[in-house]
Formats: sequence, C-alpha cells, structure tokens
Amino acid sequence: MDKILRVNMTDLTVKVEPVPADWAGLGGRALTSTIVAAEVPPTCHPLGPNNKLVFAPGLLSGTAASNANRFSCGSKSPLTGGIKECSAGGTSSGLIARLGYKAIIIEGKPAGDTWYTVVVHKDGATIKPETEVLRLGTFATVQHVNEHYGEDFGVITLGPAGENLMAIANISVKDPESKIRSFGRGGLGAVMGSKKVKMIVVNPEGGVALRLADPAKFKAANQAFTKTLLDHPVSGQGLKKYGTAVLVNVLNEAGGLPTKNFTSGQCAHHDAISGETMYENIVARGGEPSHNCSPSCQIQCSQIYNDKDGNYVTSGFEYETIWALGADGMVEDLDVIAEIDNVFDDIGVDSIETPVMLAVAMEAGLLPWGDGKRILELLRNDITHATPLGRMLGGGTGHVGRAFGMTRIPVVKNQAIPAYDPRPIKGIGVTYATTTMGADHTAGYAIATNILNVGGKVDPLSNDGQVELSRNLQIATAAIDSTGLCLFIAFPALDIPECLGGVIDLLNARYGINLTGDDVIALGKQVLKIEHAFNLAAGLGPETDRLPEFFELEAIEPHNVKWDMDQKELASFWNF
Amino acid sequence: MDKILRVNMTDLTVKVEPVPADWAGLGGRALTSTIVAAEVPPTCHPLGPNNKLVFAPGLLSGTAASNANRFSCGSKSPLTGGIKECSAGGTSSGLIARLGYKAIIIEGKPAGDTWYTVVVHKDGATIKPETEVLRLGTFATVQHVNEHYGEDFGVITLGPAGENLMAIANISVKDPESKIRSFGRGGLGAVMGSKKVKMIVVNPEGGVALRLADPAKFKAANQAFTKTLLDHPVSGQGLKKYGTAVLVNVLNEAGGLPTKNFTSGQCAHHDAISGETMYENIVARGGEPSHNCSPSCQIQCSQIYNDKDGNYVTSGFEYETIWALGADGMVEDLDVIAEIDNVFDDIGVDSIETPVMLAVAMEAGLLPWGDGKRILELLRNDITHATPLGRMLGGGTGHVGRAFGMTRIPVVKNQAIPAYDPRPIKGIGVTYATTTMGADHTAGYAIATNILNVGGKVDPLSNDGQVELSRNLQIATAAIDSTGLCLFIAFPALDIPECLGGVIDLLNARYGINLTGDDVIALGKQVLKIEHAFNLAAGLGPETDRLPEFFELEAIEPHNVKWDMDQKELASFWNF
Repeated sequence: MDKILRVNMTDLTVKVEPVPADWAGLGGRALTSTIVAAEVPPTCHPLGPNNKLVFAPGLLSGTAASNANRFSCGSKSPLTGGIKECSAGGTSSGLIARLGYKAIIIEGKPAGDTWYTVVVHKDGATIKPETEVLRLGTFATVQHVNEHYGEDFGVITLGPAGENLMAIANISVKDPESKIRSFGRGGLGAVMGSKKVKMIVVNPEGGVALRLADPAKFKAANQAFTKTLLDHPVSGQGLKKYGTAVLVNVLNEAGGLPTKNFTSGQCAHHDAISGETMYENIVARGGEPSHNCSPSCQIQCSQIYNDKDGNYVTSGFEYETIWALGADGMVEDLDVIAEIDNVFDDIGVDSIETPVMLAVAMEAGLLPWGDGKRILELLRNDITHATPLGRMLGGGTGHVGRAFGMTRIPVVKNQAIPAYDPRPIKGIGVTYATTTMGADHTAGYAIATNILNVGGKVDPLSNDGQVELSRNLQIATAAIDSTGLCLFIAFPALDIPECLGGVIDLLNARYGINLTGDDVIALGKQVLKIEHAFNLAAGLGPETDRLPEFFELEAIEPHNVKWDMDQKELASFWNF
Repeated sequence: MDKILRVNMTDLTVKVEPVPADWAGLGGRALTSTIVAAEVPPTCHPLGPNNKLVFAPGLLSGTAASNANRFSCGSKSPLTGGIKECSAGGTSSGLIARLGYKAIIIEGKPAGDTWYTVVVHKDGATIKPETEVLRLGTFATVQHVNEHYGEDFGVITLGPAGENLMAIANISVKDPESKIRSFGRGGLGAVMGSKKVKMIVVNPEGGVALRLADPAKFKAANQAFTKTLLDHPVSGQGLKKYGTAVLVNVLNEAGGLPTKNFTSGQCAHHDAISGETMYENIVARGGEPSHNCSPSCQIQCSQIYNDKDGNYVTSGFEYETIWALGADGMVEDLDVIAEIDNVFDDIGVDSIETPVMLAVAMEAGLLPWGDGKRILELLRNDITHATPLGRMLGGGTGHVGRAFGMTRIPVVKNQAIPAYDPRPIKGIGVTYATTTMGADHTAGYAIATNILNVGGKVDPLSNDGQVELSRNLQIATAAIDSTGLCLFIAFPALDIPECLGGVIDLLNARYGINLTGDDVIALGKQVLKIEHAFNLAAGLGPETDRLPEFFELEAIEPHNVKWDMDQKELASFWNF
C-alpha cells in the first residue's frame, strides 16, 4: 500500500503510483538519490523543466522509533551542479509516511507567472494557485497554514529567497512549535521556486498508524536503541545541554575554528559566542536549553533562544551558523547572531552558505567585518527584495568570490565549506573534497574521531588514516540518512554496539526482514555510488574532488599547517 | 638566438632563457598552449600565483609576410576554467618578434598593492612600479606611452575592468593608429590584473630584421599568397568594403541572427545595423571603410567610424559586437552601438561577452531592451568603478544568468555564445560545443561552409557532416593561429590552393625547413590535443562539450528548429 505521489507542474496533474520493485526497500536519501539518478538527466539545467524535486520520509519515519522523523529532499543542485540530498526534521516526514507516501516527486515547470500551493492528502494532491502567502516569510507562511488549513498540517515552504530563485535559498519545514527546520544546503529552494511551488501543505487526515511486522520486537529494539542515545556523553549530555554550539570552544581549542574567512584557526572572542554563553543566556532569559526539532527526538539539541526581554528570537541555533557569523564573519554579539539566524529562517536561506558568503564579501570590502547591522539590512532589503546587490549575494560564496576576482574562496563544488578548518583537521578535509554533496561536514563527520574521540581516535594533524575514516563515515551516513534517523545517533553508534544493533532490529521489526550490519553498509555504499555516478555524468569529475588552492598555499595558525594531502590518495576514497 | 622572456611578478625578477628544443618549431597559439600546458597546474586558481600569462608572436610575425603580425595570448581562463588562447593584431607582435623573443611568460603574483609596468627591451625587461596610468582607460594609457616612451613603442594594457579583476576584462593592444585591438575573450585581462601588471610596453630599439633562410623564395611565396587574399571575394572584396558587419544581413537572411537573447533568428531592424548602413555612414562622414589592424594586413576589414560631425568614434567595429548590441540586445541605432563599442575598448571588456551578458540582463529585467543610454551608464559607472552592480555584470553572461536564476543563458563552458544561432546553423553549434575555448566562433568558423559557401557547401539545417566540418576547420584554425596570420586567410585557403601553398612556402623559406600540408594539419591536431588534455585535467570533461539545454527545448524561427545533435555524435569530434 506504499505509494509514490507524482506532481507534474507543467500540466498541473497529479498521479498516485505504485512503488516500483526496485525502490521498495529504500527510504530517505537512498530513495531520493535513486529517483533523481533514474529520472533527472544529469546535464539538465537545475532550474529547468527536466529537474525534479523529491521528498522521501526515512524508512523508520512515522513510527514511534526515537529520532526517526526526519526526511530527505533530493534534486540536482543549482549551487553545485551535482546531485543533492538534504535532511530535515519538522512534522511533515511522519505525516507523509502515515499517508502512505514513500516519496513525493515534484516535476516539470509551469509556463506563466502563476504560483501554486500543493496540498498533499491521503488520496493524492491538489494543485491550487497561490496568492495569499506570496512574498511572505516562512514564519508568516506557517502561521497562515495554521490558521487557514489547521495546526496539525505539515508545511514545506519557501521564503522570498526561494521565490527569487537564489542559489542560497533553502526549503523550510514547519517544526512542532510552528518554527522552522530546513533542507539547508545546495539551493534546493531555488529548484522549488523554479517550479513555482510556494508551499506544500500536508493534510494529516486519514493518516494511519504504520503497520509493524513485529510490534513487540520493535518496541524492545526502540528501548535498547533509545538507551544508547541517552547514555552516550555527546548525544545524551553535551548536545542536550549546550546544543551543537558546544563545539565553539572545542574547535577553538583544537585550532580548527576558521576565523575571519579562514585566516586563523582560533577566534579571540570565542567565549562570547560559545555554547556555554548561549546556555547561560537561555537559562537567564526563560528560554529552553533542550528542545526537539521533530516528534520523538530524544537528543533535543535544539533550544529556544530569547532576547534580553524574554521574547523568542530563534531556535535550532546551530554551531555552524554561530561559527560562520561569529568567528568567520567576526560578529561578536551572540544576540545579534541569533537575530540574524531568525532572519535566515524567515527569508529562507542556508545558514551556512549565506554567512560564509558574507565573510567573503567582508574580505572583498563590501561590508565591514562583524557588522551585524549591515548584515540584517542586506538580508531584509537586498536579498529579500532581490536588488542587484542582493542578486549577487544570493548567488552564494563562490559567486561573490568570483565577482570580486578573489582567490580565497572557501568552497568545494561551489558549496561553502563549513565550520571546521580542513588544514588542522585532515579528516574533515577528505569529506569536503570527496563527498558527492559539495563541501558538507554532515556527509562524513570526521570531527567525531579527529576531535571528539568518538569511534576511536585519528590524529587530526596527520594525513594517515583520514581517507579510510571519511569513507567509513560517509558510507554509514548515507545509510543513516536513509532511515529517517537523526545523524547524531552516529555518536552512540560509533561507541556503543547496541545502538546500531537497535537500528537494525527496528528496521527488521518494521518490515519483517532480516537485515544485517553488512546489509546496512552495502546500502550506504550503493547510495554513494549512485550519487557519484550522477555527478560524473553531470560533469563533476575527479578534478572537482579537491579543496580550493588557497588551503595548499596558506598555512593556518596555531598549528601552522597547510592542506597537503596527495590528490591520488584522495582519489582512493572511491576504491570500494 | 630566439629567446624566452620570463617575468616573475612574485619576486619581481626577469630572466632571458634559451628556447627549449621542444618549443623550437612553435609559435603563436601552438607555443602559448604548449607552455600553459607544461607550466600551469590545470586545477590552479586562474587568478592565483600558479597561473601564467603567455604572449607569443606567430611563426611569421615580424617578417614582411602579409597579414602575419598577429600574436597569441594564452593562460588558464578565469571565465571558462580551461585553457585559453586569444589572437590579436596591433603593433606589438612584430616588435616582440624582432627583439628575438618567441614568448613572454608573465608568472607569479606580487604581494601587496603596488601595480607595475613591464618594459620589454632587447636585453630583457624592466619591472617598475606604476602609478601614472592606473585607473586610466586604454586610449589614455596608449597616449601616455606615446608621449612618455615613444610613438613607436608597443603597448599591451588593461582597462579599469582588468584592474577590477572582472571575468569580462580583455587585454588591449595598441594598433598602428594608436587605437585598440584586443585579446578579447576568456577574461585574460583579469589574469593580467591579478599579477598587478597594468601594462607591458615594448621598446623597439635594437629590434632586427628577422633572418630568412631563403629570402627570394620568401618574397615569391608572399606574392603568390597575397594574390589569393586579394582575389577571393570574401577577403578581397566583402570584408574590405563592409568589414565583418557585412554578415548582419547575410545572417538575418539565413535566419541565424540571434535576436533578443536568442529568441528569434531574424531581427526586424537588421538594415539599420547592417554593414551596408555602416559603409554609407563611414563614407558620408569622412571615415575610412578599409583600414588595417596590424602592419602588413591586405584584407583591411577594420574601418574608422565617425559620428555625424566627422569625429572619430570607433574602429575595428565588428559584426559580433554590432550583432550582440543591435540584434541580441535590441539597440537599434548604429551610432549608439559605435559609441558603446568605443567604451568597450576604453574600459577593456570583451565586446562579445559583455553585450551578450547585457542581453541576458535585459531579459532578467535589469535594464530595458535596447537601452543604449543605460548601457553606457553601466559601463562608465558601474563596471568602471566596480559598484556592486558592476561586480555582478563584470562576472559575465553565465554569472548574471545564475544570479537571476535564469535558464536561457547562452554560454558554453561559461563563455558567451557569439553571433550565429546554432539551431539553424548546426556546424557552428558543433564548434561552440567542442572547442577547447568555450563558445567561440573563431575556433572553427563553420559559417564559411554552412552559410557563405566557402570551402564547399554543407547544409546548415542538417546535422550531417557538421562534426567533420567543424573538426577540419578547428584543426586548420589551430595551425593558422600558430603562424601569426589573420584567420581570415582561411577564406581563400578553403577555395584557392595557392593560398595554403603560399603559407607553407613562407614558413619553409623563413626557417629553412620542408613542411608539407600534412605537417600543418599535424600541428593543428597537436595543438588541439594539448589543449583538450589540459581541459580534461582542469575538470572540463566531455559533459561540458555541449550547448545549453534551452537550445534543445526551444525552437527558433524562421526555420522552427531546435538543437538536436546526438551527444555521442558530438563526442566523436575528438576521434582523430
């Protein structure tokens, strides 16, 4: 009874199709990447009618399994030109799964200027012209759905940046508090905008509890699995108390906190922007230090961050955003960073790509270092209203760097490098260079083993063992991204055997199958190979599996190291 | 006694080196591409210290051979990311050749903000800090050299766009009238700017008449060769009278004159912007219909175009520029187009990339169609002074198209497609797709055989025979570009046997060798293969050998044809 929902925006038709046999065992990233590879011509224009946008709940989404209500969005990225998969929380994944849809495929592109809302329901979807929420920010759009459709509806929407077809645009998902979670990277908001879909609304009516092949086994497996999440110091304590911002001081200490557009590995004002400071502010101002981004989350790395008067400012206030604005862009005031984060969510832009781009623009002299007020103007005026300046900024980090003829442009495959300098942390450099996604720490989070000593220890300053580390992590991540589970389960999975065992038991009990650990690894490998083949056919050959040249030319303090991994060794990543 | 002049801008040193044996028989494009392939890491940043800028006179430059005083400039292009060779006229090629330099290699990159002038002389070069001509346009820069160095000095310089490191920036060369010829395409001005070289001044003192192995044979060969230039209707009559703008009406008639950003193949106001109208204006206003861009030119396709008061406006007023502004960008007044052309020269921007970019910006709504006044403002203010808007425009056609999320972006390998629509003229489409240069009509001018019936006739609307046609033309062109001869000798070369025979005799008489026609073909093949290997190693794989998708999706009138060549057939281009 699983179905594929196909929404054609060229002729405004909807089809509910049976799931092809080849796709039956797939979910999340495995399914989005398989569908994109099967149906999108690799050399098509990402914003043209031949690209598709695919949403797929994970294999465990919609069940009671802990941390399993994330879903994937896949497409050809207008930022990288390659395949893209993003994962997001929020409420929609479970709703879609319980409506029986394994995937929603948005395809084609309408002629004319009319925008649309796609209302997904148990019998398919309705495509209706949209005027009321056009040009609204994402918070107001969610509010509109709550008021006009129902508070229990799911929302997947665009901010103005997505309507502007900008490569920094993300796709926003309503979370349990009617705030915003994001398919952040790769400009997927521009793809959705190109299809003139302002929002996808998910009507939960008629959704059913998902059938479990072995309910008792499922329950037991979930208990064992959940215990590991709570027992591990990173997922059970560090992330819960300080959120991901716990990493500010950790990375600063490691000398891998890229500062002032990657000119130093340490930031003098790290304390002011740290997770510890965030926690103190949250507690003092009546916010919530621990908060879930989607139903059933046990880790609760999100938080509610209030201003000095106790009013909501932002949630899902991530390390990478704080790093990019606070260290890379030198904004020293955490409250200003929080306000900017809120605007990122509201206008619908990637909170990594956008601030890394702004730091490049600061180096170019377009705005002063650390000028949060100017950043807010650029976001609220130029990017929102697509002034010519906003158009340039909306192109992202590589775009701005090229406009200024710069050589210090931190991108791989044109996507901004996130919050961990690859020179003193070689493992993450391998991930940036080789992942099919463009620079992306989540694709193979070598920080775990290079810095946090999770899953063993590999010396971050040495090239030895980093390719193998990144490969193993990327394979495991591709599998986890297919389950609907949050990637942070990887911390216990790397250290506590019962964690991965629990995941496998959950899958087996859900579907009545007999997966082994090897099967999971095989799935991860399959996903990476599908994505890699797409990228090669799209023109992203091995020459693009590399870091920007300036990492090879400029040593970074405090370790005074350059990026010096042999390109052949890097290429050996794909030997599996 | 041939030498290589190597100018290192990192440590501000100059070396005069003997010519390596491998480079001995090479000149022009063959030499620049060989040096770039040998010395520039294909994946380096084009504006970083590892890129080089190479100037090389052709094999016949500096002699009395007709039309032989062109030279090549080679580098890794910041626009395409691949290898680049441009050819230009002017006075410097002959001067450099007579000083005994086979090539000038500008390498490295200075720290700090100081700009430099490189004075090339018979014993090497002097690098001196430059302040007097900084921010000046190219005409004023040439004037400065005439006044402060000498009227017989050669000048190779940048306009403000090159100083701004913009990808639309070209490199300007002083011509016999102290006007401007250009290494137009691929953003080479940004490479020169990145090395902080404002100008290269060539001191002719000590230049010597080049030794001819067989002076009598050389003279006879030149006479026979020159006769073919004058006898052929295209090179001897059409180009001399109407310049290249003779093509406006020809292409309009053929339905291949891309109009309004490639939405039609015919332009209603074609007469107003035609070569015939240009000729009438020139004659009526006391200009010169026929004028040479470099010493010894017999074809004289250039002209002096005056305004209504008889004052100089522009020269080298090319079909491609007139097409791009007049038809693609809908500027209907030839006088306005001429004024814009003058500004292109003065600020130093590619007169194809820039107006094609402007037509894309017009489709995006950034300025009205055909608004010449606004174009002049954008050039003189925004691009010259690098406002944020100017920065965006300075990135070129692809850059602007991406900023606006457009799908109708006429580029190949990110370089603007010139003045011939590939849908009704399939042969030129093959050249655009496959040339190592990014979209470039000069790389294999299939218009000759598709439209002008030179070198036979291949139906422009059929795919049959187009790959072979383009391949043969590209091979021949690569060889011609190595001689210093103007590409327009290809018209007689395709129709009159004595033309190519004359060229071979000239080379043999100059160097005392025994080249055959097969050797010339072999040289052309060798050049293309060197360039192709560089591009593959730079990441420009076969997936980039294609036209933009919109040519496959949109039929163009009047022939109502799409681009429909099979990608495998296109890939067979490289089977030689």
